[in-house]
Amino acid sequence: MSAVEQIADWRIFQTAETIATVSSTADTIHLTWSDGRQSPYDRFWLRDNCSCAACYLASTREQTFEIVDAPDTLAVQETELDAEKALLVLWSDGHRSRYDSGWLRINAYDDARRAERRSASPSPVLWGAARADVLPTFAYDSVMSDDGELLRWLVAVRDIGLTLIQGVPTEPKTLLGVAHRISHIRETNFGTVFNVASKPNPDSSAYTAVNLPPHTDLPTRELQPGVQFLHCLVNETTGGESIFVDGFAIADAMAQEAPAELAMLTDTPMEFWNRDSRTDYRWSGPLISRDGEGHFSEVRFANFLRGPIDAPTDIMPGLYRALRLFQSMSRDARFRVERKLAPGDMWVFDNRRVLHARRAFDPMSGNRHLQGVYVDRDELRSRIRVLERELGA
Amino acid sequence: MSAVEQIADWRIFQTAETIATVSSTADTIHLTWSDGRQSPYDRFWLRDNCSCAACYLASTREQTFEIVDAPDTLAVQETELDAEKALLVLWSDGHRSRYDSGWLRINAYDDARRAERRSASPSPVLWGAARADVLPTFAYDSVMSDDGELLRWLVAVRDIGLTLIQGVPTEPKTLLGVAHRISHIRETNFGTVFNVASKPNPDSSAYTAVNLPPHTDLPTRELQPGVQFLHCLVNETTGGESIFVDGFAIADAMAQEAPAELAMLTDTPMEFWNRDSRTDYRWSGPLISRDGEGHFSEVRFANFLRGPIDAPTDIMPGLYRALRLFQSMSRDARFRVERKLAPGDMWVFDNRRVLHARRAFDPMSGNRHLQGVYVDRDELRSRIRVLERELGA
Repeated sequence: MSAVEQIADWRIFQTAETIATVSSTADTIHLTWSDGRQSPYDRFWLRDNCSCAACYLASTREQTFEIVDAPDTLAVQETELDAEKALLVLWSDGHRSRYDSGWLRINAYDDARRAERRSASPSPVLWGAARADVLPTFAYDSVMSDDGELLRWLVAVRDIGLTLIQGVPTEPKTLLGVAHRISHIRETNFGTVFNVASKPNPDSSAYTAVNLPPHTDLPTRELQPGVQFLHCLVNETTGGESIFVDGFAIADAMAQEAPAELAMLTDTPMEFWNRDSRTDYRWSGPLISRDGEGHFSEVRFANFLRGPIDAPTDIMPGLYRALRLFQSMSRDARFRVERKLAPGDMWVFDNRRVLHARRAFDPMSGNRHLQGVYVDRDELRSRIRVLERELGA
Repeated sequence: MSAVEQIADWRIFQTAETIATVSSTADTIHLTWSDGRQSPYDRFWLRDNCSCAACYLASTREQTFEIVDAPDTLAVQETELDAEKALLVLWSDGHRSRYDSGWLRINAYDDARRAERRSASPSPVLWGAARADVLPTFAYDSVMSDDGELLRWLVAVRDIGLTLIQGVPTEPKTLLGVAHRISHIRETNFGTVFNVASKPNPDSSAYTAVNLPPHTDLPTRELQPGVQFLHCLVNETTGGESIFVDGFAIADAMAQEAPAELAMLTDTPMEFWNRDSRTDYRWSGPLISRDGEGHFSEVRFANFLRGPIDAPTDIMPGLYRALRLFQSMSRDARFRVERKLAPGDMWVFDNRRVLHARRAFDPMSGNRHLQGVYVDRDELRSRIRVLERELGA
């Protein structure tokens, strides 16, 4: 067959394996790989992924071909391996496609490859009072100037969920520079940069001096902010210590110790409402969520932002048993890491996993001023992928 | 019992019904209402919702009491209706609570009240070529100056999903003023305001002159932008007509005409990847989603932003049959509304429901410049609630 010009992808798909044999029916191409793996490829799946210059727009590397335009009768007419061991396909309508073997291996959807893909997805490192040593500290200067250190920090935010950056200049808005190492900011009704200080007319308990029990920020939103930055500019007060709790560690412990209560929390949406004169946010979602693979993916909880629970009569007693257990575990010393923030410290954590708390402080004992911003998980993950691509990690 | 000071809520809970009888066990208070409805209230649920000055922070109207601090043995000791027919409760630990009857009626979780709540939630108004008359037009001046008109517009965005505002000044960034009538902007990697024009080094097919098939914006993100604003500043080109498709109308038709294909699309996540040198966003989600009540809640689709589908071998043929049917329906004239944007027109639509498309245009035939911003559904809903509260709607 003649050559097919492909539109390159930014991603590199490499494999040590080669295609050993190709067989096909009208509907499916079956590859056997050098390690014996068998991968079937449906005709429409393959045709949909043709990356030739007629199917892709070169300037954007985006597909212009729409699979609905393939004929219902589309069939594989001829297959061949070229000199680079890529698969060439001649289709029944005359179209020709070329697929790199690495691309085919990595994007295959046979059961073995699907299992590999699942096991390659990052797993959280759980922590608590007895495992606080896994919590990493980074230096501001390195994170700002060294992309390798930036990547290590971002992977820690993704997998450990709680990181400390030290030596951050205490000029207001310095945290924006660090956040922009990832991407743009997630703005909220509290602004782009929010200032955590005791205020005269507070629109949130965060802006008072009271104890704040362990919580995630903005559970009243459909998408809670993904990554929270809390930068300490001044902290002269008596009290006001910060406490961090790994929500996934609690969920993991509940799976062992109280599976019925955990199921209550994952299966029952709870109401979260704010109570402000200018906004009225409401969202209803489970306190603990799992992803499609059954892994814990999110914790949603702030006691001071709850609305009346709307659940069937017969499950209400069990739901309150589960909620009270979760609250009691979030107070348990084994899950807590307590730190007093010093000027120049910046905590960066996964707000959809790590609950944070603040002890009450005496606002007359001195000044206390933190600044915060949010960046979403999408931006964190995108930045990690691009850095891995650029650094060959 | 003596009086209990309550911390007022911004919300008003009113009912025409009154409490007829109160009976209680240690665990539950049962109310019978003047219309015969029976509402049970679990002890912990009631205690959790005590709005007294000891349980709430007056300055923020946020709860400070945590239900884990109620004793396991908490029991109802005494109940009474006060002069305003509010329920007073004396608890076994000595705490006293007061609940307005309107609050109790509206927040009750008996089956009848739960069914009422579900049926009161807004339903989408479906549209298509034969029902394009439901699509409303608003005047810029009214939306900017009249809160009643603002509310009518926002309810139309929520329920109809596609609205046109006319007479918008064609100064760049004018759309920000309209969006700020709702709230802050959802920023993305394309900026706060994005400019839709043919560009020399495009990072999206949107920034070329090619045909853009019906799509939602940013399906590569966990949370697709909720509300999209598209403001036409200049449109002198040949071609480039805008097409809008009600994704919920397609989903509704599939439920009648092709339920097996619809189930494929709601049950199987599909991959969405962007292909840029500076970002690498990926998300996997079903093309059509339903909410907890089974109502259609979201459409996620852009052909030019798809990645290779990762689904089990045995469902791939059926999944492609469903995908091709959806694409073919999105081309069907019955679901399409086609308009040529004129300078001063601004389309505001639910990007998680309405697919938009653009015909190819000839970039040499004249200038074409649109500006866009996004605002999320959370902000839309919050603004509607606050306006309804303020206007007594």
